[in-house]
Amino acid sequence: MAIKKNIIVIGGDGFCGWPTALHLSKQGHNITIVDNLSRRWIDQKMGADSLTPIASVEDRLAAWTETTRLEIEFASIDVAREFNRFTALLASVKPDVVIHFGEQRAAPYSMKGIDEKRYTVDNNISATHNLLAAVTELGIDPHIIHLGTMGVYGYDDDGIQIPEGYLSVYIPGDDKRIFQRDILYPTNPGSVYHMTKSMDQLLFQFYAKNDLLRITDLHQGIVWGTQTHETKLDERLINRFDYDGDYGTVLNRFLMQAVVGHPLTVHGTGGQTRAFIHIQDTVQCIALAVNNPPQRNGKVAIMNQMTECHTVRVLAEMVAAHSDTKVAYVDNPRNEAAENDLRVSNKSFIDLGLNPITLAEGLMDETQNIAVKYADRCIRKMIPCVSTWTDKQRPGVVKSAA
Amino acid sequence: MAIKKNIIVIGGDGFCGWPTALHLSKQGHNITIVDNLSRRWIDQKMGADSLTPIASVEDRLAAWTETTRLEIEFASIDVAREFNRFTALLASVKPDVVIHFGEQRAAPYSMKGIDEKRYTVDNNISATHNLLAAVTELGIDPHIIHLGTMGVYGYDDDGIQIPEGYLSVYIPGDDKRIFQRDILYPTNPGSVYHMTKSMDQLLFQFYAKNDLLRITDLHQGIVWGTQTHETKLDERLINRFDYDGDYGTVLNRFLMQAVVGHPLTVHGTGGQTRAFIHIQDTVQCIALAVNNPPQRNGKVAIMNQMTECHTVRVLAEMVAAHSDTKVAYVDNPRNEAAENDLRVSNKSFIDLGLNPITLAEGLMDETQNIAVKYADRCIRKMIPCVSTWTDKQRPGVVKSAA
Repeated sequence: MAIKKNIIVIGGDGFCGWPTALHLSKQGHNITIVDNLSRRWIDQKMGADSLTPIASVEDRLAAWTETTRLEIEFASIDVAREFNRFTALLASVKPDVVIHFGEQRAAPYSMKGIDEKRYTVDNNISATHNLLAAVTELGIDPHIIHLGTMGVYGYDDDGIQIPEGYLSVYIPGDDKRIFQRDILYPTNPGSVYHMTKSMDQLLFQFYAKNDLLRITDLHQGIVWGTQTHETKLDERLINRFDYDGDYGTVLNRFLMQAVVGHPLTVHGTGGQTRAFIHIQDTVQCIALAVNNPPQRNGKVAIMNQMTECHTVRVLAEMVAAHSDTKVAYVDNPRNEAAENDLRVSNKSFIDLGLNPITLAEGLMDETQNIAVKYADRCIRKMIPCVSTWTDKQRPGVVKSAA
Repeated sequence: MAIKKNIIVIGGDGFCGWPTALHLSKQGHNITIVDNLSRRWIDQKMGADSLTPIASVEDRLAAWTETTRLEIEFASIDVAREFNRFTALLASVKPDVVIHFGEQRAAPYSMKGIDEKRYTVDNNISATHNLLAAVTELGIDPHIIHLGTMGVYGYDDDGIQIPEGYLSVYIPGDDKRIFQRDILYPTNPGSVYHMTKSMDQLLFQFYAKNDLLRITDLHQGIVWGTQTHETKLDERLINRFDYDGDYGTVLNRFLMQAVVGHPLTVHGTGGQTRAFIHIQDTVQCIALAVNNPPQRNGKVAIMNQMTECHTVRVLAEMVAAHSDTKVAYVDNPRNEAAENDLRVSNKSFIDLGLNPITLAEGLMDETQNIAVKYADRCIRKMIPCVSTWTDKQRPGVVKSAA
């Protein structure tokens, strides 16, 4: 490793944040995790739990030091609500890099009810803005790396390959001239959660332009897989495996259903095409981003952090083929296109040297070493998706016009 | 008037909200003002004050009833912070229309310092989202009218006529096909304040699409003028005239400077072109919007609420010609293009019957009946603009790259 950096990982206790913190610590960087432990209390409130047993923060950090002789600092701060404490930490750590995972990240949870909608907006927007405002106020200059989502692009514009953040368009003027512009890809979020990440883009755009902050926004696909090289080192370091209807992503839920003998529940026709990435590739991408800060040119660097696209139906078939399970087609609780095509550019990370793990090669390992191994911890009633996108009984609303 | 509607005016104590509430009350609608009185306490905090003497809310409302025999309800609620009280009010009033002015609306104030940046983002985003979330949760169906700003379009894309919200673009595919799309005009906000209105657009886009709310977003130019037919009826009904460096818009500041014999301070070359509208036309536009709710088609109706464009330099010359004042060119505290062209479509309101008051005809009246009449209330030290867009001393920031 070339240069040892001071790195703050906001949300470093979460599913992506934890393995990222370990990976960067292993690479020799000084890591400070900032977290409000929201994934833990949200689980408690929902009655859900990670399939894998998650140690307390103290035990996780002690295990890391025991295993590697490396230390990671931890600060229990809510970045959205404890601005002064967060600013004091920034002033003391003087980070070279801040990695921002500090947002409520489940689309179904963000649609669950009024409290969850409001929490997602208030937490995610204030957290992102507090970070930008604090950095500007202190006059420090960290490279800010943010976890965005492929969902900002939306999934219903078949035909156009999803570019990396910016789209080249031609605009006919009213005087017969034609103007070419590179614009932020017109956002089309499908949930309150995805909407907040679209709003984040405008926060980054403004602070990059006005204050010349250096910002990398990573539009990530759906993450699958549980373990990375570092989280495998000790069982106390194990990463989360969420399978409940709100936080469990589609592949985890299929794996869990297969193991407990539940039919694989596909929403609608399963024709929804989505982008995927393995958690090991997530941490690799973030390390690449850390080592490749953008130019200070007033523009946010946007990269797509995904490695392959599949339809939900094909995923279900892959999992069914590995197990003795049937596929069940159920009503879609989401408000989304039934079928869509998806082609995504991920040229930036491939050019930087990303060598992806494919679903085909990693699926069996995930099944055996996670889903089967911890199957007895499964809380079956948490499997169905119960958060719906719209109240079909709402007076005056003609659902078919959506 | 055809139909008497229940109308909630959020921010109905402010500069645009107050005359709007009176105008719609005069038209026979049932009006409930919701306000956190932020313009009053922000003035107190800054040591500023409206040039015109603003009565207390109680005296304003009593004067209205005394003058017209009409009643306006008032609820002291902070929509961003008192969600439950606001929801209870919505449930009780069952509004046909909610007009949302409840946002911090001064660009310089939003750039003044860290507290003002954070207040602007946290207040504006939470207020807008709380309104949308509460309406969805209650299952009520008011037409929501929001005051946006021309500033969401930005001012540095010369050549393209600013359309009403949506832009028709052509996108070259990677397979030689060309796709036409109507997209939200790519936003380019120039301050934290304008950024929040750009973020509001994404909130509206999502709730219109997902929950089929009927929303009208009015992108308003810079408002000039003080009085409307209704605010002139009694001095206790008088509207605000802000001339301080943060809340005073450019024309008010020139008028004030002329009256007190201060040179007219033009930022930079004064080549910035901006869109304007008289406050009387603002209330007329909102009444037109109230009477013309959009279709429930999943799409926000966006109209440009402005009537003419001028450069700041030309405005200064107009005011100087009316008075014995000189124009002084000073450093621009803002981070903006020095010169820009601006052509804006306002076809929707013209088609609905708007008959604009021009600056040329209204300027003399404004000077005599407001600036001269109340000149002795002027606090001279509040005139200069002291909020700067960037800290030029910031380490590591190469200002010229902006």
